[in-house]
Amino acid sequence: MSRLVHRTSRTVVTVLDPHGAPLADTDVTVAQTRHAFGFGCTGFEFIRRTPGESAPLEDLWLGLFDTATLPFYWRHFEPEPGRIRTEPLRDAARRLTELGVRVKGHPLMWHTLAPRWLLEHSNDEVERLQRDRITREVSDFAGLVDTWDAINEVVIMPVFRAEENAITRLAWEKGRIATIKLAFDTARAANPHATLLLNDFDMSTAYECLIEGVLEAGVRIDALGLQSHMHQGWWGEEKTARVLERFSRFGLPLHFTETTLVSGHLMPPEIDDLNDYQVDSWPSTPEGEARQADELVRHYQLLVEHPAVQTITYWGLGDAGAWLGAPAGLVRADGTPKPSYTALRDLVRGQWWHAPQVLRTDASGRVAVEGWRGDYEVRLGEATSAFVVGDEATSVRLPAAVPAA
Amino acid sequence: MSRLVHRTSRTVVTVLDPHGAPLADTDVTVAQTRHAFGFGCTGFEFIRRTPGESAPLEDLWLGLFDTATLPFYWRHFEPEPGRIRTEPLRDAARRLTELGVRVKGHPLMWHTLAPRWLLEHSNDEVERLQRDRITREVSDFAGLVDTWDAINEVVIMPVFRAEENAITRLAWEKGRIATIKLAFDTARAANPHATLLLNDFDMSTAYECLIEGVLEAGVRIDALGLQSHMHQGWWGEEKTARVLERFSRFGLPLHFTETTLVSGHLMPPEIDDLNDYQVDSWPSTPEGEARQADELVRHYQLLVEHPAVQTITYWGLGDAGAWLGAPAGLVRADGTPKPSYTALRDLVRGQWWHAPQVLRTDASGRVAVEGWRGDYEVRLGEATSAFVVGDEATSVRLPAAVPAA
Repeated sequence: MSRLVHRTSRTVVTVLDPHGAPLADTDVTVAQTRHAFGFGCTGFEFIRRTPGESAPLEDLWLGLFDTATLPFYWRHFEPEPGRIRTEPLRDAARRLTELGVRVKGHPLMWHTLAPRWLLEHSNDEVERLQRDRITREVSDFAGLVDTWDAINEVVIMPVFRAEENAITRLAWEKGRIATIKLAFDTARAANPHATLLLNDFDMSTAYECLIEGVLEAGVRIDALGLQSHMHQGWWGEEKTARVLERFSRFGLPLHFTETTLVSGHLMPPEIDDLNDYQVDSWPSTPEGEARQADELVRHYQLLVEHPAVQTITYWGLGDAGAWLGAPAGLVRADGTPKPSYTALRDLVRGQWWHAPQVLRTDASGRVAVEGWRGDYEVRLGEATSAFVVGDEATSVRLPAAVPAA
Repeated sequence: MSRLVHRTSRTVVTVLDPHGAPLADTDVTVAQTRHAFGFGCTGFEFIRRTPGESAPLEDLWLGLFDTATLPFYWRHFEPEPGRIRTEPLRDAARRLTELGVRVKGHPLMWHTLAPRWLLEHSNDEVERLQRDRITREVSDFAGLVDTWDAINEVVIMPVFRAEENAITRLAWEKGRIATIKLAFDTARAANPHATLLLNDFDMSTAYECLIEGVLEAGVRIDALGLQSHMHQGWWGEEKTARVLERFSRFGLPLHFTETTLVSGHLMPPEIDDLNDYQVDSWPSTPEGEARQADELVRHYQLLVEHPAVQTITYWGLGDAGAWLGAPAGLVRADGTPKPSYTALRDLVRGQWWHAPQVLRTDASGRVAVEGWRGDYEVRLGEATSAFVVGDEATSVRLPAAVPAA
């Protein structure tokens, strides 16, 4: 707890009655509703195929996470020029927002899953089409999706060789920094309030060097995205600490954008590109599940302790349909939670969570709420009102109680 | 030969007599004296311990190389504050210059072999001392040493952990690009005519990212230094071509600053930092020597074919005293040349060399010299005069012949 003191605060809340007068000497219930810290997960399953359907594992998802990453892979979003998937994505984003979930879009520019039809265009045309696509998606989703991976995996982008694509060709010609500037400037112009990330899987000095160059070039980055697909095993405390030390040096918030730990055998260490590992079956095992739960807890603890980290996104709640067929989910393919799910929920919605608590206001209607930074509500009978536990004292006015139906 | 056409030229030379009149219809001997391309080697052995002594292997050295790298490692150059080794280095540089050898200094700033006494100073003081040291050496050697590795191995510099040192501490605080700027700006101010290199062993995307950032920051780099200590085996054609493609993209000249191929067993591939490999004995073997000769020739051919490459420096002529005790020299510890020496000399001073040739001037005193770009001389009896085979027509005036002694 003492190592997490920066994640907590004590906020004095003045509770007002519906007329705006302090509600003195009254028992009210105070409860946390969301973390300030982002406990995220991919929310691809919230994209509905038929109207009204729920996401598979929806209750498990909402029982642990508060931040969703939605897929905007260009190849899928616009399979043919002009045929775009805005509506199902907007529906998912709206639904998640209504459920109290923050929504992030991933990614606006990436060489992998770039449309194949881009290849027939010249680099100048590709650049124009890429700019137009960024402007379109960022504008269309402003207010629903205000956090974006502006550009993904630029360290390898110009020298990527696994698949011929137009974005690698463009990045080779322009250079990495000019390409990043293209993505950030275009997204920023379309939504000046957006939080824009540079995101990469490369935790080597290459990413450090790239970040230095981008900052030197005057590009404003709102947060650094660090992937951590740990199919080859948990980084461990030393590497995790070192990554945190090396990437927090830039004074920017860190988002762990893509986190996975498998609950089966580990991918062999000699595999360089994780995509190269193809197996018929990669089962979740009891030993693997115990290891995954243990390491997940230790990993989250280390990250939450570090003051630069703002968000951790787990890359996929369920094993069903997981990347590479890996048992990387926190829920088995049969829908039952693994020990990792329970262990993480015990932290995020248990040990690190302000459960409902009855507090008595003082003669001036004030209560001091001490707890995890984030969104809260105060309840009196049927009336509730929201407030924030952060650095500022605040007040809440309770609405006139609506009679129960 | 056709793949090396950019290394050759045809230059029309007008030969003048001592009075400046064209020397018509006369047989003159034309001979190459040095390559425009730098065929370099470390020249540490030219630093004399006793006045007048020759360098060990001096004839073999001069029979192959035309460009020397001299050591300016700060820890050795200034073992105690103010006690500097300028004189022996100046003597070596002067002697090499008199022998027609171009001289380069290595390196002005580096974390490894930084003086231990720097550690007691604050970062501000370290920066001032580093600037003073750069100014001092670059000024003291101007005219003798006009090519410098301004800074060495910056990719790892701020995160280097093998030995605590003040330069890593400074680079961590300032960042890589500001540190590079410090070294380049200071050296440039001390000698505006110097050729300044950024030099690294890291051939990964990290170095690419660093270069992009440095160029973006407006630092003028005169040439990119690429190390290639191949103790774990020759890169091979594909990797070599890819390195050339990736690093020539910046439009800067490439110097292969530190090249080695061993003539014994290869260092195991799992060794990450070559310094970690310690063996009692690492013999040169007949099979290893055959392999080394073959790969050396193929490596030099690929590099010389690429138009961006200006210099290749081999890292140590002899096995005696070689880094890591490796049989990395072209000459055995007993002083006899390995097949690699002979093979490389057959290229550099054979196949790629314009041997003395008798040419007859025309009625206007002109001869057309077709050959490898570089320095030449024209001879008539005892009189000689120098000219350059490059892109420009030229003229040479022969001095009055000095009678033979």
